Amino acid sequence: MKIVVIGASGTLGRAVSAELKTRHQVIEVGATHGDYHVDVTNLPSVERLFHEVGKVDAVVTTIGKLHFGPFQEMTADQFWIGLRDKLMGQVNVVLAAQHHVNDGGSFTLTSGIVGYEPIREGVNATTVNLALEGFVRGAAIELPRGLRINLVSPTVLAESMGVYGSYFRGFEPVTAQRAAQAYCRSVEGAQTGRVYHVGY
Amino acid sequence: MKIVVIGASGTLGRAVSAELKTRHQVIEVGATHGDYHVDVTNLPSVERLFHEVGKVDAVVTTIGKLHFGPFQEMTADQFWIGLRDKLMGQVNVVLAAQHHVNDGGSFTLTSGIVGYEPIREGVNATTVNLALEGFVRGAAIELPRGLRINLVSPTVLAESMGVYGSYFRGFEPVTAQRAAQAYCRSVEGAQTGRVYHVGY
Repeated sequence: MKIVVIGASGTLGRAVSAELKTRHQVIEVGATHGDYHVDVTNLPSVERLFHEVGKVDAVVTTIGKLHFGPFQEMTADQFWIGLRDKLMGQVNVVLAAQHHVNDGGSFTLTSGIVGYEPIREGVNATTVNLALEGFVRGAAIELPRGLRINLVSPTVLAESMGVYGSYFRGFEPVTAQRAAQAYCRSVEGAQTGRVYHVGY
Repeated sequence: MKIVVIGASGTLGRAVSAELKTRHQVIEVGATHGDYHVDVTNLPSVERLFHEVGKVDAVVTTIGKLHFGPFQEMTADQFWIGLRDKLMGQVNVVLAAQHHVNDGGSFTLTSGIVGYEPIREGVNATTVNLALEGFVRGAAIELPRGLRINLVSPTVLAESMGVYGSYFRGFEPVTAQRAAQAYCRSVEGAQTGRVYHVGY
């Protein structure tokens, strides 16, 4: 398969790309790193990307900024961060790429455990992660030509505990390499509209 | 109780307001109708509203534009409609009003059945409705002073079948009056972080 991984230079993206590369042709895409560059918050930029890359069999996104901070002081602008980036970034990819994925191809998006297990200062993350679940649920029944769409929702990554550990006391982290297996299940499997939980 | 109902001139809002008025002081708010006017998509407008209204015991929102249309032709701008209006409109209300609700008071927001039961042309609605569920889940654990927040998710309203009926074949509609009871359970009950399903 020819697979585009957007966010391929991140902790999770690197692991997903490494795993998929053992069996497939992987095109690594990032904001500033990789074979191609894209600004996912900008739909025309995503459209340009897929015009350049051409037809593909699968698209994986492992991207998304969120805002973490106390709800009592949160501003609308801070709340928009996750909506504009992690949510609409991934929505834009599917809106643009649906016309460039071969019959039977797939999208695999990324949410996270905070959608199910809220944490202090995490309301933006919980909102965005469940929004992505809704998006996948809605898009799955409308995509034509056997196109599939799934969501991977990992718990906190072992590699991220240095930065995010204080938010996740008592959560058992998983390695990015283990989380990458869920992306393979989505890309190489046959299901659609699924959420793959990793580590919970 | 002193209760603000935002969206009080809509089909659902009228029923909620009528029911709550039998026992409480209700302040009816709308974009162009009611005791006060507000643009919920604009946080400063919501802040002005609550400075004028003063302290309240409960806030109910029954608002929200969404975009319905085929996913294959959807633009980012169309997808933004539900995010800006139904999602951020209700988020803005909670961000601003949390500082004006008395101890133990409550927020009751509105999503809808399409969050759980996707329909053709409904991906924007499914996304936004689940985002609201995430927002309520995240905010419930952070709100101080015993403040509560819940979500009412009704099936299609009998009064709306003329307009939306073709999207909802096989769904059993409920009257706005019946849906209004779920808002009373949230406002006059003691739970928080709950989703009240109505009619499904």
